Amino acid sequence: MAQTATLLVSCPDRKGIVAALAQVLYGHGANILDADQHTDPIAGQFFQRIRFDESELHTDRHTLERALREVADRFEMSFRLERDDRKKRMAIFVSKTDHCLFDLLWRQRAGELRCEIPLIVSNHEDLRGVAESFGIPFHVVPITPENKVEQETRELELLREHQIELVVLARYMQVLSNDFLQRFEGSVINIHHSFLPAFMGGKPYHRAHERGVKLVGATAHYATPDLDEGPIIEQDVARCTHRDTVADLIRKGRDLEKVVLARAVRWHLEDRILTYANKTVVFE
Amino acid sequence: MAQTATLLVSCPDRKGIVAALAQVLYGHGANILDADQHTDPIAGQFFQRIRFDESELHTDRHTLERALREVADRFEMSFRLERDDRKKRMAIFVSKTDHCLFDLLWRQRAGELRCEIPLIVSNHEDLRGVAESFGIPFHVVPITPENKVEQETRELELLREHQIELVVLARYMQVLSNDFLQRFEGSVINIHHSFLPAFMGGKPYHRAHERGVKLVGATAHYATPDLDEGPIIEQDVARCTHRDTVADLIRKGRDLEKVVLARAVRWHLEDRILTYANKTVVFE
Amino acid sequence: MAQTATLLVSCPDRKGIVAALAQVLYGHGANILDADQHTDPIAGQFFQRIRFDESELHTDRHTLERALREVADRFEMSFRLERDDRKKRMAIFVSKTDHCLFDLLWRQRAGELRCEIPLIVSNHEDLRGVAESFGIPFHVVPITPENKVEQETRELELLREHQIELVVLARYMQVLSNDFLQRFEGSVINIHHSFLPAFMGGKPYHRAHERGVKLVGATAHYATPDLDEGPIIEQDVARCTHRDTVADLIRKGRDLEKVVLARAVRWHLEDRILTYANKTVVFE
Amino acid sequence: MAQTATLLVSCPDRKGIVAALAQVLYGHGANILDADQHTDPIAGQFFQRIRFDESELHTDRHTLERALREVADRFEMSFRLERDDRKKRMAIFVSKTDHCLFDLLWRQRAGELRCEIPLIVSNHEDLRGVAESFGIPFHVVPITPENKVEQETRELELLREHQIELVVLARYMQVLSNDFLQRFEGSVINIHHSFLPAFMGGKPYHRAHERGVKLVGATAHYATPDLDEGPIIEQDVARCTHRDTVADLIRKGRDLEKVVLARAVRWHLEDRILTYANKTVVFE
Repeated sequence: MAQTATLLVSCPDRKGIVAALAQVLYGHGANILDADQHTDPIAGQFFQRIRFDESELHTDRHTLERALREVADRFEMSFRLERDDRKKRMAIFVSKTDHCLFDLLWRQRAGELRCEIPLIVSNHEDLRGVAESFGIPFHVVPITPENKVEQETRELELLREHQIELVVLARYMQVLSNDFLQRFEGSVINIHHSFLPAFMGGKPYHRAHERGVKLVGATAHYATPDLDEGPIIEQDVARCTHRDTVADLIRKGRDLEKVVLARAVRWHLEDRILTYANKTVVFE
Repeated sequence: MAQTATLLVSCPDRKGIVAALAQVLYGHGANILDADQHTDPIAGQFFQRIRFDESELHTDRHTLERALREVADRFEMSFRLERDDRKKRMAIFVSKTDHCLFDLLWRQRAGELRCEIPLIVSNHEDLRGVAESFGIPFHVVPITPENKVEQETRELELLREHQIELVVLARYMQVLSNDFLQRFEGSVINIHHSFLPAFMGGKPYHRAHERGVKLVGATAHYATPDLDEGPIIEQDVARCTHRDTVADLIRKGRDLEKVVLARAVRWHLEDRILTYANKTVVFE
Repeated sequence: MAQTATLLVSCPDRKGIVAALAQVLYGHGANILDADQHTDPIAGQFFQRIRFDESELHTDRHTLERALREVADRFEMSFRLERDDRKKRMAIFVSKTDHCLFDLLWRQRAGELRCEIPLIVSNHEDLRGVAESFGIPFHVVPITPENKVEQETRELELLREHQIELVVLARYMQVLSNDFLQRFEGSVINIHHSFLPAFMGGKPYHRAHERGVKLVGATAHYATPDLDEGPIIEQDVARCTHRDTVADLIRKGRDLEKVVLARAVRWHLEDRILTYANKTVVFE
Repeated sequence: MAQTATLLVSCPDRKGIVAALAQVLYGHGANILDADQHTDPIAGQFFQRIRFDESELHTDRHTLERALREVADRFEMSFRLERDDRKKRMAIFVSKTDHCLFDLLWRQRAGELRCEIPLIVSNHEDLRGVAESFGIPFHVVPITPENKVEQETRELELLREHQIELVVLARYMQVLSNDFLQRFEGSVINIHHSFLPAFMGGKPYHRAHERGVKLVGATAHYATPDLDEGPIIEQDVARCTHRDTVADLIRKGRDLEKVVLARAVRWHLEDRILTYANKTVVFE
C-alpha cells in the first residue's frame, strides 16, 4: 500500500540540486510520484515540492531524513518533510459572520482538508451553535482595547495547549498584534474581501460600490504585521453591474471568500506553498 | 424592413416616466424591441435605454423627436436619440504599441463596431504601416513638454475637421490636458492595464509582479482630468502564477486589454452607456 | 415604507404592450422600480419583468389585478403577479450527498433565498442529521422499482399537504415519473454535474476525465420528462488539468454545483425566469 | 549568456527515472531551470518536461544527446530534445474566415509564437490580402469532391518542400483525409467552435442557441481521423444570455477561438504538450 510523503525545499539556486535530491530519494528506495520546481532567476532562488512513495524504503525514515539533512546543509537549503497521512492541527478564529466558518467545517468533515480542528476561537458568542453542530469546542475570548494584550496571551496559551500549527482568520474582525503574528509567522491565513491591493483596509464592498468597479474580489494571504500586505496565496473575482447594491456585492463576495479561503487553506495543509520576498510559490 | 433607433434617457426618478415614454412611442407608431431600465434609489436617479422600430411611424421623425422633447422637459430628462444605422465617427490615438490598434481596426472591418474611423493620431511614426494596411489616414503629432499646448490644439483641429465623436486612447502614452478632456467630456475612452483602482499610474504589470498578485487585469474607463479615476466601463482579469515573469504578465495583459477595450468601445457606439456620479450604467 | 411586487409577463409580440402595462401601473399609482424586457423576433414572443412599489396605490390590489387581467386578455398574455415579501414554499429532495443541501439550507437561513423550507424528502436516512441541525422536518421515502408508483404518490401527497410550490432536486438520485413532472411542470429544478449537453446521463465526471476535457461544468435546469433535456437556467465551469483525478473533478464540481444550483433557485424564487421553446429567459 | 533547451520525456513509470535524467544533465554541466513532472498512476505512465541551460556544458551537445539516449533506452523512454532558440516551421490552413489567421500572424510578428510561417494554404482566394499584408506566401488549393485526393497530395508536397513541422487549421472548412492526418500525426492542431464534446460536428453556435445554453465555448485539439475526437489541448468559454442571437454567439465565439487556438499553438511550439490515451498533458 502506498504511503506518501511530501518534501518542500527552498535554497539559493545552484547546479546539481535536482540531481542531489533525486539521488538521495532513489538511493533510499523512495519513488517520486510528483515533482514540481520553480527557479526565480532574478532572486536566484530555487524551490521544489516532491511527493514520493516511501512504502518500499530500503532503510528507515530516520536514515532518509538524515541523508536529506546532509544535502540540505550542502546547498544551504531549508526543507520540510511531511507524511501525507498526518493531519495538521488547525484553529479557526471568527467573530459574528458564519459563512467561511461553515464552509471550512463542512469541507473538513467532507475530507477536503487534511486537518483536525481542535478548537474555534471567537471574540463573540454568536457562532457557538455552529461550532457545536459540528462537535468542535468553542472558546470565547472577548477583546477590548484594555484587555487585548492579556486576552491574546490567553489565545496563545490555547493554541499551544492544543498544539495548533495553522490559524485561519475566517472573517475575524480583530487585528492581531505583531507579537502574535511573529510567533505564528507563515502560519496565519487571513481572507480579505477585495482583490488586494485594491480597497485595502475596511469596508471594501462599500468602496467598490462607490468606485463603480465591474468586478469584486477576495484575497487569501498570510497575515503579517503589515496589515493586508502579507504574501498573497489566492485571489478570485466575480462580475458585478450597476444593478448591484452594496448588499448584492456582499452576497456575491461571500461566495468568493469561501472558495478563495478554502483553496488557500487546502494548499497550505498539503504543503504546496512556499513564501519568499513577500510572495508565494504555490505548487498547485 | 426594420429601421431601428435607440433612445437613451436619464432623469431624477419620478412616477410615470416609463408610461410617458412608452405612450409617446406607441402613439407615434414605434414598436419597442428592447427596453432596459435602472433606478438608483439612493441617488434617486432613473435611467433607460429603449430600442424601437421606426419603420411604421405614423408621423415623421421630427414629430416624434418633438414629442419626446416635451416629455423630456416635463421630467427634467436628458436624452439622446440615435438611428442604429448611423455610424459614429471615431478617432484612435496610439503611440508605439499596436495590439489594441490592430484589434480595433480588425473589429471595425469585421462589422463588430458601429463606426467609421476617419483618422488615427500618434505621437510616433511607428504604426503608420498598420494604419495604411487598413487604408486609414495616419497623422503624426509629436509631443514634447514645450509644444504640448500647440500640438493638442492641432489635434483638436483634426478632430473637429473630421467631425470626430469618440476618441479611443489605444495605449496612447501621453496625458491629455484638462482642456482637451473637457471639450470631449464623456467621449474619450482609455484602456488602463490593471484592474483599477489597484496599480493606478505607471508600470502596473511590474508592480503586480512585485506584489505577487494571482490575477492581472485591465480596465476601460472614460478619461477625465483625474488620471485613472474616470468612470469604469468594463474590467476583466486573467490568472497568473509564480511562474509568470513581467514579460508573461504583459503578454497575458495584452489579450485582456484588447477585449476589454473593444467591449467598452462597442457599448459606447451602440449607445449602451450612461454615466453619473463617476460611475457607468451599462445596458449590455 | 416600500412594498414591492413583481409582474412577470409573456405574450405574442405586438405594438403597444409596454405602453399598456406601464399605463395601467401608473394609473393605479404604482411606481416602476425596475423593468427588464426581451423580444424574440424569430419566435415573435414578448417577455417582461416589472418590479414596482405598490405602497402608494390609489386603489386596492384587487382593482390593480383586475385591470392587469384586462390588459392580459387583450394581448393574449400569461402573467404572474407576486408580492416580494411573500416567501414561496420550497421542498428539497436529496439522496446521500449533502453539499447542495447544506448550501441551500445555509443560504435560506442567511436570507439569500426568498422561501420557506417546510420539508426535505429523501430516499435514504443519511442526511437526517443535516436536516435536523437546521430544524427542518425530514421525510424518508425509500424507492424500489416495485414501489415507485405508490411512493411517488406519497411524495405528491406530502407536497400538497405542505403546499409546496417549488421542488429542488439537490443531487436526488431517482428519476421522477412523467406524471410527477407534469404536475409540477416548470417548478422542479435539477442540478446536473456537467456542462450540458456534454456528458448527459450518468457519471459525467468519469467521462469528462476519460475524454480529457480542460473544463468541468455544472448545469441547473428545469426537470422535464426528457431527462437532462429541460430548459437550462444556469451553467458554470471550472478549469482542470491533466493532474486532476476523477476525485479532484468531483471536488471541483461540488463547488460549481452549489453555486449554480443556488443561483437558479434564487432567480426562480425572485420570479426572474420565464420559459419558452425549451429555453429560459432569465432577467438577472 | 544563457542558451536553453527543452527535454520532453514519456515512458512507463519506474523508480529512478527522475534521478537518472537529473544525473545525466548535471554530469554534463547542464543547469536545470524548470522541471515539471506528471505520473498517471492508473495508466502507469511517466511524463516530464525539463528546461535547462546548456551554456556551460562540460562536453558537447552530441555527447549529451548520446548519454540521454542511453537513459532513454534503459527506461523504454521516448524523448524529444529541442534548442529553445530554434523556431519551428508552421503552416496555416484557412478558408474564408480571417479572425484566427489575423490573430496568429499578429502574435507571430509580436514574438509570442516561437515559429516561422513559410506558407499559408487555402481552398479559397479570399484571404490572400491578409497573407500579403504580413508578407507570407499564399497558396490556393481548391478542393472538390473529385480532386480531393490529388489536391491533398499537392498540399503534402508543399508542406514537405517547406519542411513544415506543424499544421494549424485556423477555421479550415475541409476535412483532411486519414492519410494526411497519419503523416502529420500529433502535428495538426484544429480549433472547434464549441466546448467539445458538446455540439460536435457542424453549426455549433446555431445548435447552442437552439439548446439555450448559458455558455459558449471553443476547443483546440489535435486533429485525428475521428473528427472532433482528438486529444483536447485547451478550452475556454464565455457567458451568453437569452438576449444573444446566433450572430452574437458567433461574435463572442470568435474571441474565444482566437485565444484558445493561440494558447494551444504556443504550447505546442514551446514543447509543452505530451499526448497519451487520447488526452494531453500540458506543462503550462
